[in-house]
Amino acid sequence: MISRHDCSARDLDDPLAPLRQQFDLPQGVIYLDGNSLGARPKAALARAQHVITAEWGTDLIRSWNTAGWFDLPKRLGDRLAPLLGAQTGEVVITDTTSVNLFKALAAALQMQASDPAQAARRVIVSERSNFPTDLYMAQGLAAWLDRGYQLRLVDSPDELGQAIDADCAVAMLTHVNYRTGYQHDMAAISSHCHAQGALALWDLAHSAGAVPLDLNGAGADLAVGCTYKYLNGGPGSPAFIWVPAKHQARFRQPLSGWWGHATPFAMDPGFAPADGIARALCGTQPIVSLALVECGLDIFAQTSMEAIRRKSLALTDVFIALVEQRCASHPLGLVTPREHARRGSQVSFTHPHGYAVMQALIARGVIGDYREPAIMRFGFTPLYTSFADVWDAVEILRDILDTQSYDIAAKRDAVT
Amino acid sequence: MISRHDCSARDLDDPLAPLRQQFDLPQGVIYLDGNSLGARPKAALARAQHVITAEWGTDLIRSWNTAGWFDLPKRLGDRLAPLLGAQTGEVVITDTTSVNLFKALAAALQMQASDPAQAARRVIVSERSNFPTDLYMAQGLAAWLDRGYQLRLVDSPDELGQAIDADCAVAMLTHVNYRTGYQHDMAAISSHCHAQGALALWDLAHSAGAVPLDLNGAGADLAVGCTYKYLNGGPGSPAFIWVPAKHQARFRQPLSGWWGHATPFAMDPGFAPADGIARALCGTQPIVSLALVECGLDIFAQTSMEAIRRKSLALTDVFIALVEQRCASHPLGLVTPREHARRGSQVSFTHPHGYAVMQALIARGVIGDYREPAIMRFGFTPLYTSFADVWDAVEILRDILDTQSYDIAAKRDAVT
Repeated sequence: MISRHDCSARDLDDPLAPLRQQFDLPQGVIYLDGNSLGARPKAALARAQHVITAEWGTDLIRSWNTAGWFDLPKRLGDRLAPLLGAQTGEVVITDTTSVNLFKALAAALQMQASDPAQAARRVIVSERSNFPTDLYMAQGLAAWLDRGYQLRLVDSPDELGQAIDADCAVAMLTHVNYRTGYQHDMAAISSHCHAQGALALWDLAHSAGAVPLDLNGAGADLAVGCTYKYLNGGPGSPAFIWVPAKHQARFRQPLSGWWGHATPFAMDPGFAPADGIARALCGTQPIVSLALVECGLDIFAQTSMEAIRRKSLALTDVFIALVEQRCASHPLGLVTPREHARRGSQVSFTHPHGYAVMQALIARGVIGDYREPAIMRFGFTPLYTSFADVWDAVEILRDILDTQSYDIAAKRDAVT
Repeated sequence: MISRHDCSARDLDDPLAPLRQQFDLPQGVIYLDGNSLGARPKAALARAQHVITAEWGTDLIRSWNTAGWFDLPKRLGDRLAPLLGAQTGEVVITDTTSVNLFKALAAALQMQASDPAQAARRVIVSERSNFPTDLYMAQGLAAWLDRGYQLRLVDSPDELGQAIDADCAVAMLTHVNYRTGYQHDMAAISSHCHAQGALALWDLAHSAGAVPLDLNGAGADLAVGCTYKYLNGGPGSPAFIWVPAKHQARFRQPLSGWWGHATPFAMDPGFAPADGIARALCGTQPIVSLALVECGLDIFAQTSMEAIRRKSLALTDVFIALVEQRCASHPLGLVTPREHARRGSQVSFTHPHGYAVMQALIARGVIGDYREPAIMRFGFTPLYTSFADVWDAVEILRDILDTQSYDIAAKRDAVT
């Protein structure tokens, strides 16, 4: 049995514990929703003040040069790259995950269509349980291309091997499932894709900053992801897209805006894509939100994804163990894999009154979230979550369940 | 002849003069580049602090509900709508102008393709002098659709009448030209489009907040635009898209992300577009940059576009007159129409050493910008530009030209 004292002892031994001081976390809250919106780096306020007063207010239009606004997507992409197993010049931070997925999927289909040996492929493989917007974007693209592309959705990761076949143009998968926390084997699936002649496109929304990634080493073809979850970039901060050096020359995407032009200030009426990763850009980016992404990356630069992963697995192991020890009499079902290699940085449990229980937890200061059907989702962010937090969260959960202190008539909010 | 005293007297009579106090403008600068990046509303700093500390930092994920983040694109769109001659529920602030143009153009082509009487049309009419990214996005869309769509570019507004013909699916025009300041007759061109069976899609990047607009009255079909120029939303602040009530039911666009879904939190794997303007949304928006847009709109709410237009025309009239009076011996060529109805809120002059002269102006604190070929561009923003500013700017221009105090070997910066 694990005690609170054990948890406190682990905190004393935790090399990441000091990083918590770099985040602004409200008093009385145990925040287990960093997989939805990362907490605020304290530095973000001063950074915003600087961008707003000095760069926008004082230097005004000159800041496109003097503050490097125009290069910000590339400069921040280069800072993010090491967390992804990507090289300098392979990542930009720009637009939204949905828009970047559209670019990447369109480019992947085009790469296949322009290869006579692969041009007949018309299937996009994904999972029915993928984050819905990924499926929506694929549906939108397929319908507009009107060339017979169809989505083949599997119901279990086990079916991917068979589904990714000689008809498959692209496997479009989210590396860590938003609901279950299941983590795919990126290298094995990418390798299977290539053996079948397909390309592997990965959504890293729940992976970047959460688990070690080695995009190049895994042989992935394209990737997109989000900066406002584990990367702590701020609400809705711009997303990223990765195009490896091996594919950049043939990467073409339909959102061909001026930031992706070879000579954006020549004002040529004809589009010519920039060399390198810049061709994944489109239009002018929201500079204040974009600049704040750096505050999160600055904290990652003080540790390593390996250290983060060690603590993440320890936190989720302890959480699972404590829930199973202390809430054993309640109908909780573990959804997240116990196997480390298959687990992201979240833990999900079902409960028949999952929504109501989560509302009660939030009212008591333990912030997780709820996803249909019946899933309580708890995200663990090693940069600012302690082992004592885990103990205290489970203790509050136990108390709520033991005393049935939740309103089974609770209705879902519009959002979250 | 106009004197500085005349200018000061006009400032004393100017009902908009007090609004300048709501902007943070650096000492010693006459800012005539609000057509590229609007100045900073003083309120933007406190608003950013609130969003970052209270909404992100303290309320965290709950702010999607409590701070109304999810509804922000619609709520701000409704606040912008009156400046455009649009109705409540017809505008959202989201994504970039380029991305919104892609959505709008795709939707317009689809509307035509689904009408048997118009389905054969394959021509998109625009101007060669349009802002290049608009042409790039149209090229990208046309190439990816691969259904024979072609861009027909005219070299002069006079040619539009003939170019918009029975083959034309959509006329995609920027209402006020970014380089010349030429303003199209939106009602006449939209009407001509309809008479020919075409749709009229307008880019309002240099119109919104600059000139009175009556989208519904003019019979326009779709519009997009930018909030970081005359609307003072901040660097790269999210753009807008207008879909009139009359077209919403058949408006479909390929960037079908979860924010445009009928039930975004049901997590349904199939896309179904939301009713109304929400179907123009796609992915999660950059909340800090988006929230700052409201600070600019708050200032517009204290006056009217008619009052702004009166002062804009007075400022540009005085600027043209003063340049022609005081710099008459220099080879300056007025590019912007003298006719009020054809003029936006900027004035452009050519000069053989336009780039060098503009650099000398900027070094003396008069910030305009330069556009190829040989064009010096001066934007006039009635919310914070005074008649005395106009006098002083022309006086500095005169001095630079009279004394040839510019470096004809000056090389262009990477950006601006």
